[in-house]
Amino acid sequence: MSERDDILPASIENTAGDAQRKRRHGGRSAERGKPRRAVSGQAKYRTVLNNLPRSAVLDDQGLEAIHEASLTVLEEVGIDFLLPEARELLRAAGADVDPDGVRVRFDRGLVAEAIASAPSEFRLHARNPERDVILGGNRVVNSAVASAPYCSDRDHGRRSGNQEDFRNLLKLAQSFDIIHATGGYPVEPTDLHASVRHLDCLADMVKLTDKAFHAYSLGRERNLDAIEIARIGRGISAAQLDAEPSLFTVINASSPLRYDAPMLQGVIEMASRNQVVVITPFTLAGAMAPVTIAGALVQQNAEALAGIALTQIVRKGSPVVYGGFTSNVDMKSGAPAFGTPEYMKAVVAGGQLARRYRLPYRTSNTCAANTLDAQSAYETMMSLWAATQGGGNLVKHAAGWMEGGLTASFEKFILDVDLLQMVAEYLKPIDTSPDELALDAIRDVGPGGHYFGTAHTLARYEHAFYSPMLSDWRNFESWSLAGQPTSFDHANRIYKETLAAYQRPPLDPAIEEELDAFVARRKAEGGVATDF
Amino acid sequence: MSERDDILPASIENTAGDAQRKRRHGGRSAERGKPRRAVSGQAKYRTVLNNLPRSAVLDDQGLEAIHEASLTVLEEVGIDFLLPEARELLRAAGADVDPDGVRVRFDRGLVAEAIASAPSEFRLHARNPERDVILGGNRVVNSAVASAPYCSDRDHGRRSGNQEDFRNLLKLAQSFDIIHATGGYPVEPTDLHASVRHLDCLADMVKLTDKAFHAYSLGRERNLDAIEIARIGRGISAAQLDAEPSLFTVINASSPLRYDAPMLQGVIEMASRNQVVVITPFTLAGAMAPVTIAGALVQQNAEALAGIALTQIVRKGSPVVYGGFTSNVDMKSGAPAFGTPEYMKAVVAGGQLARRYRLPYRTSNTCAANTLDAQSAYETMMSLWAATQGGGNLVKHAAGWMEGGLTASFEKFILDVDLLQMVAEYLKPIDTSPDELALDAIRDVGPGGHYFGTAHTLARYEHAFYSPMLSDWRNFESWSLAGQPTSFDHANRIYKETLAAYQRPPLDPAIEEELDAFVARRKAEGGVATDF
Repeated sequence: MSERDDILPASIENTAGDAQRKRRHGGRSAERGKPRRAVSGQAKYRTVLNNLPRSAVLDDQGLEAIHEASLTVLEEVGIDFLLPEARELLRAAGADVDPDGVRVRFDRGLVAEAIASAPSEFRLHARNPERDVILGGNRVVNSAVASAPYCSDRDHGRRSGNQEDFRNLLKLAQSFDIIHATGGYPVEPTDLHASVRHLDCLADMVKLTDKAFHAYSLGRERNLDAIEIARIGRGISAAQLDAEPSLFTVINASSPLRYDAPMLQGVIEMASRNQVVVITPFTLAGAMAPVTIAGALVQQNAEALAGIALTQIVRKGSPVVYGGFTSNVDMKSGAPAFGTPEYMKAVVAGGQLARRYRLPYRTSNTCAANTLDAQSAYETMMSLWAATQGGGNLVKHAAGWMEGGLTASFEKFILDVDLLQMVAEYLKPIDTSPDELALDAIRDVGPGGHYFGTAHTLARYEHAFYSPMLSDWRNFESWSLAGQPTSFDHANRIYKETLAAYQRPPLDPAIEEELDAFVARRKAEGGVATDF
Repeated sequence: MSERDDILPASIENTAGDAQRKRRHGGRSAERGKPRRAVSGQAKYRTVLNNLPRSAVLDDQGLEAIHEASLTVLEEVGIDFLLPEARELLRAAGADVDPDGVRVRFDRGLVAEAIASAPSEFRLHARNPERDVILGGNRVVNSAVASAPYCSDRDHGRRSGNQEDFRNLLKLAQSFDIIHATGGYPVEPTDLHASVRHLDCLADMVKLTDKAFHAYSLGRERNLDAIEIARIGRGISAAQLDAEPSLFTVINASSPLRYDAPMLQGVIEMASRNQVVVITPFTLAGAMAPVTIAGALVQQNAEALAGIALTQIVRKGSPVVYGGFTSNVDMKSGAPAFGTPEYMKAVVAGGQLARRYRLPYRTSNTCAANTLDAQSAYETMMSLWAATQGGGNLVKHAAGWMEGGLTASFEKFILDVDLLQMVAEYLKPIDTSPDELALDAIRDVGPGGHYFGTAHTLARYEHAFYSPMLSDWRNFESWSLAGQPTSFDHANRIYKETLAAYQRPPLDPAIEEELDAFVARRKAEGGVATDF
């Protein structure tokens, strides 16, 4: 072991005297173990497959109890649909619509029949076909932070977002292949007027990234603009867009048991055009949902099934995703909490429900931390392992989400990319082919040897293991000489290196011209009304 | 929602204008969401059951390939046993022992026959019967950091350990019920002479904690002293000790494929007295083991099976644990890495192997970080979720382990306790009984209401969710006014509060007297030789 005396000894847990221990342990050398630079274009992360067995926090009986209770809620309590057009569609499909109000009740048969037509797996097209993603089955699709009012980096602090921040976060999303789609506005660009903001933002999504993207459902006109921009971005006809889902929207229930008008307009506009609808109740146990996880799941499931049923009533077979976003509040303060044990249970249970209905499952990468400390990492890991064990197909807010969604952090984005890549590496199967079992290498090295210079090692060494971007594996002394940098320091450096290396993905000039003309025309028309 | 306007809205992902967003998002109030004080005596964590389905990173064919290859290694390559007495025992049992050397080869039948007598589950007795633990099956037993040459806290920095540090870390281990056992010397007390150190340390384990403890296998005399101290601590006869495992030792293979003499003395002394032997190869892929995870597992399994076979040859039915400690090195530097995707795979695969042999499974809570930053948390979470998904029964180094085992950190201890408690909370099943499904509460609240003041919520609110010790859920403004404390700050405060609140567990004065007399006599005899 002379050339590699920095390795921990075999008998790490048994000591034979201090001097010996320190000699054996102390040798992690100066330059070794330094964190890596960011590497973009890692095409190996474009497709992430989760072929591991799914976990279960509910037994069959518990799963059926939640399913049945949610059907009882739909039958007996019902859901308020705040858009007349939606109520009329539901009435025509056989739902029991209160003639003098907004309440809609669904019998069990109607729900089962409606959701049966939803596809279990489908392709979401990007303007670059290599960035198409498939939602459902064993696929894992990560989309970037969305909808934060603030953004932050350590150099400039926490602030309201502007267009430059918005664009820089899009550039980060474009730079890492493990981010498969953007997920909405990573931060709200408050320097753009609300009437035309969506036009500039959606045009930027087409220009600055070549990945699939999302449109907010904040009124019919915005949906229509987004659908047209998605069509222009792909350079296809309206008929082809109708055959090929190329845009997604997230529809939140206004829990408990209510869908607001703009959301319902979004369902109708998107589903009728065969675009992707991600139905996501946001059910904080103890606040907008019952304080028990079982009860919150009953409510989540009732709301989700009602929304999914509507998509299929609007257009049979249109692409829809079962979303779960159940967490808990801090029981002493009422503050929302994320990445908690209760959140994990709800995520894994949500996956069980989605699979029961053979639907793609949307979950999230959440945390409530205010800074890039240990809390930010452990809440994130709780969220990511729940998503992984629970079979999440679409992981929203996968990179950059902080403070329960209030802030998009540039450094958190890098931390999350590293963690998402670690999850993807974990999901790669162990190769047990004869060469990988290494029997010949074990025979050659034999007892008491080492594997540093063997042919078996040299043939594989360079790519055998994941190289984290943030992990600082230098020994304590070298790390101290380097100023004791934390993960926060490394992430700060790497996000800046990544932005400096960013390159705009190629875009057909004719498409860019058509896009600019559309945006200019719609701006000249005044954009959309902002009085809602 | 007037009295609780600090809750995130249902439509968290859709924005209807900035002012509204900020109003909806910005309300996490000043004192709300503050981290908790440490709470000791949390008896609910004394028994942790993992009834979730076990994960699998190997399919049946892959598992058998590793099993078969490891038997081939034992048959064709063999293991070096560096203690004549061990070789003689193995020869008498039918192994093929090199008459002129140290090599021992095992045929498949011998291995299968030997390991068949090992129990799949057994009780490890503590001096306080309420602290007994069961190893195996669905049990999770966490033992504290062990064997670090250094310790650290933020006030005093990183330093060689002394008796005071040693005792303070024992006190932390005693203070939290989620720590079920100590695991060796949390830090090496370098101010105690090596010849008598084990006497003082083991006596402290009996006095300062009432939990099960560990003895190093560093020579026969130390084993014998430890067994006697365990007997005295429990106040039982030698015959009762022989019937009731009351002490455990970790036996590391000196990988590749070798067991050193002190380790083998430990196996013989402990197994012959029916005490617990935890066989743990330490197989760093790319260093002391093949660079492939499959190959490293083949070697781990061969070494583990050889050690386990020896325990059963020494005494049929003696309690033994299958330990795995396979990780990888940094491929660019040779530095050891922990909590990596490769480490996770090895941990889950190790669990599959242990279950194949119907043996309790030992794994660890590892990380390579130098400070309490995001890295320390994400590497830890990778380790803990692998242990959980993989069915770890004994999680060594569960709290306090830093820098790949070089440092026992007081703050990391607190972080880990919080994370272990979160894992335990996650493992509690979701109650889906009628009241917990909350149908009546959902009926009462109806669409558009909230659950804050409902009877269903009030009856459960206080204990519905886990209250983390470290998570700071205050809003950004209040958190900023408080000085922007990180998890590191909170952990620093909590470890000191915990030490200040520590109380020695009751100990029969007669036992303490006998213990002190034994230690005094053995010290007077000079302790043990230190020339090994």
